[in-house]
Amino acid sequence: MPRYNPPVRDTRFILDRVLKIDNYADLPGFANATPDTVTAVLEEGGRFVAEVLFPINHSGDQQGCTRHPDGSVTTPDGFKEAYQQFVESGWGTLSAPEQFGGQAMPHVVSTAFQEYMISANMAFAMYPGLTHGAIEALLAKGSPEQQEKYVPKMVSGEWGGTMNLTEPHCGTDLGLIKTRATPNADGSWSITGTKIFISSGEHDLTSNIIHLVLAKTPGAPESSKGISLFVVPKFMVNDDGTLGTRNAVTCGSIEHKMGIHANSTCVMNYDGATGWLVGEEMKGLAAMFIMMNAARLGVGLQGLGIGEVAYQNAVQYAHDRRQGRALTGAAEPEEKADTLFVHPDVRRMLMEAKAMTEGLRALCLWGGLQVDLSHKAASEEERQLADDLIGLLTPVIKGVGTDAGYRIATDSQQVYGGHGYIAEWGMEQYVRDARIAMIYEGTNGVQAMDLVGRKLAQNGGRAVQTLFRIVTEEVAAAKAEPELTHLAEALEKANGQLQAATMWFMANGMKDPNQVGAGAYSYMELMGTVAIGLMWLRMADAAVAALAEGDDEAEGGRAFYEAKLVTARFYADRIMPNAGALRRKIESGAETIMALPVEAFGV
Amino acid sequence: MPRYNPPVRDTRFILDRVLKIDNYADLPGFANATPDTVTAVLEEGGRFVAEVLFPINHSGDQQGCTRHPDGSVTTPDGFKEAYQQFVESGWGTLSAPEQFGGQAMPHVVSTAFQEYMISANMAFAMYPGLTHGAIEALLAKGSPEQQEKYVPKMVSGEWGGTMNLTEPHCGTDLGLIKTRATPNADGSWSITGTKIFISSGEHDLTSNIIHLVLAKTPGAPESSKGISLFVVPKFMVNDDGTLGTRNAVTCGSIEHKMGIHANSTCVMNYDGATGWLVGEEMKGLAAMFIMMNAARLGVGLQGLGIGEVAYQNAVQYAHDRRQGRALTGAAEPEEKADTLFVHPDVRRMLMEAKAMTEGLRALCLWGGLQVDLSHKAASEEERQLADDLIGLLTPVIKGVGTDAGYRIATDSQQVYGGHGYIAEWGMEQYVRDARIAMIYEGTNGVQAMDLVGRKLAQNGGRAVQTLFRIVTEEVAAAKAEPELTHLAEALEKANGQLQAATMWFMANGMKDPNQVGAGAYSYMELMGTVAIGLMWLRMADAAVAALAEGDDEAEGGRAFYEAKLVTARFYADRIMPNAGALRRKIESGAETIMALPVEAFGV
Repeated sequence: MPRYNPPVRDTRFILDRVLKIDNYADLPGFANATPDTVTAVLEEGGRFVAEVLFPINHSGDQQGCTRHPDGSVTTPDGFKEAYQQFVESGWGTLSAPEQFGGQAMPHVVSTAFQEYMISANMAFAMYPGLTHGAIEALLAKGSPEQQEKYVPKMVSGEWGGTMNLTEPHCGTDLGLIKTRATPNADGSWSITGTKIFISSGEHDLTSNIIHLVLAKTPGAPESSKGISLFVVPKFMVNDDGTLGTRNAVTCGSIEHKMGIHANSTCVMNYDGATGWLVGEEMKGLAAMFIMMNAARLGVGLQGLGIGEVAYQNAVQYAHDRRQGRALTGAAEPEEKADTLFVHPDVRRMLMEAKAMTEGLRALCLWGGLQVDLSHKAASEEERQLADDLIGLLTPVIKGVGTDAGYRIATDSQQVYGGHGYIAEWGMEQYVRDARIAMIYEGTNGVQAMDLVGRKLAQNGGRAVQTLFRIVTEEVAAAKAEPELTHLAEALEKANGQLQAATMWFMANGMKDPNQVGAGAYSYMELMGTVAIGLMWLRMADAAVAALAEGDDEAEGGRAFYEAKLVTARFYADRIMPNAGALRRKIESGAETIMALPVEAFGV
Repeated sequence: MPRYNPPVRDTRFILDRVLKIDNYADLPGFANATPDTVTAVLEEGGRFVAEVLFPINHSGDQQGCTRHPDGSVTTPDGFKEAYQQFVESGWGTLSAPEQFGGQAMPHVVSTAFQEYMISANMAFAMYPGLTHGAIEALLAKGSPEQQEKYVPKMVSGEWGGTMNLTEPHCGTDLGLIKTRATPNADGSWSITGTKIFISSGEHDLTSNIIHLVLAKTPGAPESSKGISLFVVPKFMVNDDGTLGTRNAVTCGSIEHKMGIHANSTCVMNYDGATGWLVGEEMKGLAAMFIMMNAARLGVGLQGLGIGEVAYQNAVQYAHDRRQGRALTGAAEPEEKADTLFVHPDVRRMLMEAKAMTEGLRALCLWGGLQVDLSHKAASEEERQLADDLIGLLTPVIKGVGTDAGYRIATDSQQVYGGHGYIAEWGMEQYVRDARIAMIYEGTNGVQAMDLVGRKLAQNGGRAVQTLFRIVTEEVAAAKAEPELTHLAEALEKANGQLQAATMWFMANGMKDPNQVGAGAYSYMELMGTVAIGLMWLRMADAAVAALAEGDDEAEGGRAFYEAKLVTARFYADRIMPNAGALRRKIESGAETIMALPVEAFGV
């Protein structure tokens, strides 16, 4: 059976020495995030997920959710009790506003906790995860009455939340949705239609579920411009906050999926269900994008979370399993065989996993901080900068993070050899769970198109120019430090490839947008290589500083920082060479991709 | 539900115009492979697998195998009947020797049929697949009496066969096996021990199962040099060929696996089972390697087979599903949305799948032909050449082929968006099934070590020098043809990267073998890029010739060949750029991979 040890030491390193969150102590909420508080959150939160959520991860996968003939859904054994503990200990309230019962901690801190929760039990983490998305939308677009009515009990975890976008015939192309909303006399709306792939759509963890639903109002145009957002509670909520009658929204069936078996993925039937408009009519998509952007960062974090736990177990197995001898001669002649750790190709997989998980952790926490700064930074200029950067890199974190999570899970399974393929060892679950993150909240191909088709060009390319400038400046500063020169040069080169590819898009995309579409995915990967490279440069820089200070007090001592420097070099040597190949693929253009008629594919 | 259409047109193109098997008509067996016979085999064989095996693929996955309290195992509904039809129509006898009831067809032809069988139902195909491996070992090392006793009924399919290598504590490192064989007075041996991960170890398809088992004889050294091979029938075979008493070999349990649910993966308990030595005592590993090399090519073919069927379904879905609009404006304004085919990033995935499956098909069939030539070519020189090349490229076909199969299955699933994650659509099964091929018959990391640690250096590097020479000569010849120049130049460059990496290994490996081990996987990928690139050069060359001849009679007409030329350019533009990155990774050496102490990984 797998194990999980929350990487508190690494999180602390990133928060304290890379992001230096104490620099922001005078911003709202950051005062709550003193080093002691953050340490307590990470350690106690880590203990909670490891002790309560992790033990029901594998059993939850094996048992799955069950829909009953009356449409109710029960989660696997132990989930209800664990959720109760989750609510009671307040883990869902970390970064919610104080006025609605939250702890008002910075987003960057709750991001750190979410990673741990995903590692411990991704299917479980999705229940509060969806609730948070719904809270975000209500806070952004809901009326004060709606906020007061729904948000406090969603923050506490007493009620759950969902996002209802997809329908059988449309996922990405939401302009095609058929769900209809017709106005009632009392100001409410009557919602009718079928939604599919609704995560956490029905379950037994909460006493009510607040659905946020996209629908079209009478006369709305047949495009994404005609979409409105509604709040539809499973149980009507009386004015005194008690639950009223059951609304006409039911779970028609649950899906049998490749993974995340313990999260109920529902077909939701709205049969004249009562709902209320959230925000303005026909402005629903913008509201939904608020949820979606937050959700996409959360999905990127799923790549990290699954990658981390899979990697930890591969390390343990490589340490325990003896097979073969070191190429340089027996490392432990007194044993019948050496451990897997002596084999360079096993280490290659472990080092790739280490470099990518630690790099992604830095990138995800950096992203969490940008979310904070985009709302809370002191100057408009700083808020703008943070908003630009997180807007640009959200699709990269989602796309590159989840691709990496799947690859790390696959490689970690590979370390186990045949045992990795057997269910009881638990590794194949990580691969199956990681797989969905590349698909939902917009497939990774959709992320790539969001990046090149929307984010790149916004405000005249301001965001990407900012990224280039930051990388260039930090590379220039780092080159002077001998320990950083190698990585700085590799990053400079990759940044050059990214700039060249950007120029190529500008030169060719106006004439033929397919030239950009054909290179979009490689471009996303290239920007991810640069962004994670930047994180490694910052981590290496922080490690050099810590070593110079003689910081050997914390867990791991000097060896922790020395390992960072080795891993940074590994990233430069073994990951960054991809940048040149990606640029060449992009610059080969659309011709061979678009040339063939459909018949040539055999349809 | 998925569909499957055997790619007969493409197979014929490769056999007829790329490999030109009619050039070999005077070699033993090839006279049986007239164009008409081969066409009949491909079309009828393709129809058989599509109509009989494919319909029980998804149901077989859902139902899986069942072990009963008495140790017997039943396969999923329909498997027994399908197997009966398989035996009756003689599909298992294609390339077996005539003296044992086979049709003595060339291996290259049965390879083509095996691809189809895997695409239709990989779990099913493993039953006769393992039998063939056992036949190979008996034909190579068994006594004439053993061959006469077992082989005819294994060829006919009346009996099955298995390979028993792995034990709970050892897979790759077979020197550690504990299964013991002690001699009986009558010349037989008594076998005791536990074997795990035994594919097709127990089932209800055949009346007898012939196990080939590795065990150690008394006094054998504690290394792979002390291993002997035994034949252990499930039921003893009387002198008249009838079945006698049940042998003391039983299935202790079956594994619950990520995929290939319809193939029984057994723990086999040998409790003083009666067996007979195959070949010489303590020479068992060499005998097993005969099975294993054939099996590795068969596993590479699994990568191709699953990749092909997954790709076909992704194409169909991209054709059927309407979502969004072409970047260049609505392609079908009268419809509410365009098909997925208009989106460059969807096409990117489909083109990658097309380029890799067609390239792998050429490589696998080329490999099948080398197996034929290594036995049957007229001169010792030609046999040697074929043996060198297939020895070198067997780990590449296995490693690169199965990595590609998994990637193609994953990308094809991705084309389906959310539906790809749902079991009933059938795409997630392909990912789960494809995954095992990267692990068994030696993990792909073991393949990489076989390539760089054994195959490269054999006979003073003769095989790899031969490969370099062939690529160089064909590139030089192709450059003169305008349609081929682009690919030829890309291949020349990649071949240069491969040569440089080989030189780097030679210069650095003697001092420190970890320098080679650290680059082994990238080297395998690089050689695969070159080998498949060579196949694309040959296919493009054949397409140019066919177009010049005005060949527009066969299915697809000129468009078939024109698509080959586009796909060849795609391969040059979008796959070959990886070669430079792979070389750079190799030449970065072992330092960052081997530097960290185990503690730095958190154990």
